[in-house]
Amino acid sequence: MNKENIAEQMRELQLFICSELEQVDGKATFAEDAWDRTEGGGGFTSTIKNGNILEKGGVAFSAVHGPVSEIMRKQLQLEGDSFFATGVSIVLHPHNPHVPIIHMNVRYFELNTGVYWFGGGIDLTPHYIVPAQAQLFHQRLKSVCDGFDPEFYIKFKPWADDYFYIPHRNETRGIGGVFFDHLNDHPTLSKEQLLAFCLELGKNFPSIYAEQVAFGKEILPTEQEIQWRNLRRGRYVEFNLVNDRGTKFGLLSGGRTESILMSLPAVANWEYGFEPEPDSQEARTLGFLSTPQNWL
Amino acid sequence: MNKENIAEQMRELQLFICSELEQVDGKATFAEDAWDRTEGGGGFTSTIKNGNILEKGGVAFSAVHGPVSEIMRKQLQLEGDSFFATGVSIVLHPHNPHVPIIHMNVRYFELNTGVYWFGGGIDLTPHYIVPAQAQLFHQRLKSVCDGFDPEFYIKFKPWADDYFYIPHRNETRGIGGVFFDHLNDHPTLSKEQLLAFCLELGKNFPSIYAEQVAFGKEILPTEQEIQWRNLRRGRYVEFNLVNDRGTKFGLLSGGRTESILMSLPAVANWEYGFEPEPDSQEARTLGFLSTPQNWL
Repeated sequence: MNKENIAEQMRELQLFICSELEQVDGKATFAEDAWDRTEGGGGFTSTIKNGNILEKGGVAFSAVHGPVSEIMRKQLQLEGDSFFATGVSIVLHPHNPHVPIIHMNVRYFELNTGVYWFGGGIDLTPHYIVPAQAQLFHQRLKSVCDGFDPEFYIKFKPWADDYFYIPHRNETRGIGGVFFDHLNDHPTLSKEQLLAFCLELGKNFPSIYAEQVAFGKEILPTEQEIQWRNLRRGRYVEFNLVNDRGTKFGLLSGGRTESILMSLPAVANWEYGFEPEPDSQEARTLGFLSTPQNWL
Repeated sequence: MNKENIAEQMRELQLFICSELEQVDGKATFAEDAWDRTEGGGGFTSTIKNGNILEKGGVAFSAVHGPVSEIMRKQLQLEGDSFFATGVSIVLHPHNPHVPIIHMNVRYFELNTGVYWFGGGIDLTPHYIVPAQAQLFHQRLKSVCDGFDPEFYIKFKPWADDYFYIPHRNETRGIGGVFFDHLNDHPTLSKEQLLAFCLELGKNFPSIYAEQVAFGKEILPTEQEIQWRNLRRGRYVEFNLVNDRGTKFGLLSGGRTESILMSLPAVANWEYGFEPEPDSQEARTLGFLSTPQNWL
């Protein structure tokens, strides 16, 4: 299994996910944008907008390579002369505030020194948190993880809680999920099996999201709920631009801006000093976000 | 002239600017929010919304003090045990796309070692750049600068061009203005005169903005122009959250989040791969933003 082979499987995963998400949406289709990277490699950024369910979203594949730059050496503490990286990353912003925002990323990285690792994760950002839905989401993730290593969910769930946190708001981004990085050298799983784990997460992504969509899509939102959705999207923008290490590194290191920032919503709002009504649905959601929850 | 005296003058400046801006707006008034800082000091954050002219804006005063923290020592390379900082900062987002976004900040910083400096600036972000308006804006700034030191505009204009730049977009944030930091030890101006320069910038701020408002406020915007305004606001959000050193340091060092992020607009939009029509007003504005311009 060489790196080209891994990239091919990532590309297939992207195509599979786009096709499945078009079914979930039922109206809009993905538009694919091919791009090349001057220093080596390129990608296909597929975006969707103005669907039945999805207002704006992207499923991006890339496979890039080249010399390890000064900024990579410094920020990622990489040793080696050249690197190869491939993966799929997704953010979906639905219209309906009762349908959550979702993010997924799976990636493979290797250096010419022979060092390699996998990374990735899936996390969910409901505008309104409903514990039963949160529980189902985590059950699905745990079940994918358990198929490979019962330690995975135990390790990767708190990792997501830690990663998807907005310190300047004292809030988690959403209900978390799983997150992992530098996955290699596993006691029982081969490199092929670690790749299979990443791909399995990706293959489960559309049905995991479809379940979440099904919960909320029939609820007709009020104007106030739309406004709340837009404020929560504001927080999503803050996390991505202030805290997300992937986004920051991508922008700083000269990554393709439009592909990196496809994660941003069509519309986001900010309001000075906004406080939800006590005991409202909005206040309950903020309560759940104040500290990571054990959803299972 | 001690630090308390400087803080008092900053607070008076805030009150003067709020009162003048209420005249400019003609409808909305500022709401003042007092806050204390656990480690010492506090501020008054005044915000305005849903006005005739201003959709969302803030004029913030603070005077804070305390021990020099590890993060201040590291990021600002400060030496000393304790600091004092006071200043006024402003961001105004108008409704009308033909009226520019404006930002101002003046500040004073001192350490217990006796080291002190002033910093600040004013910069303008038109949604649509009109050279005659840009020229007037720069003339006004140059004229305030020239009243103190003919070198100021020459130095501070390119400093603003450099500071208000969005590398991941290869764009300037707007038409720049003036920016300066670590201003002290001036060959001819005393500490009192450097403060007077900062205050003079602040006192001129309302009339500088009123002129810009007058140019655009009667132009009835189209839906397409509103959409473009929201996309430009998206860039403003990107600059503030990704690039602005003040915002980043404030959030990282535990500053008051709502006061720092009062700079964000009520609504901002993002669209994947947006390109304006060739030869449109929007394309001409992007042309002006591709590199700093000499407006005088």
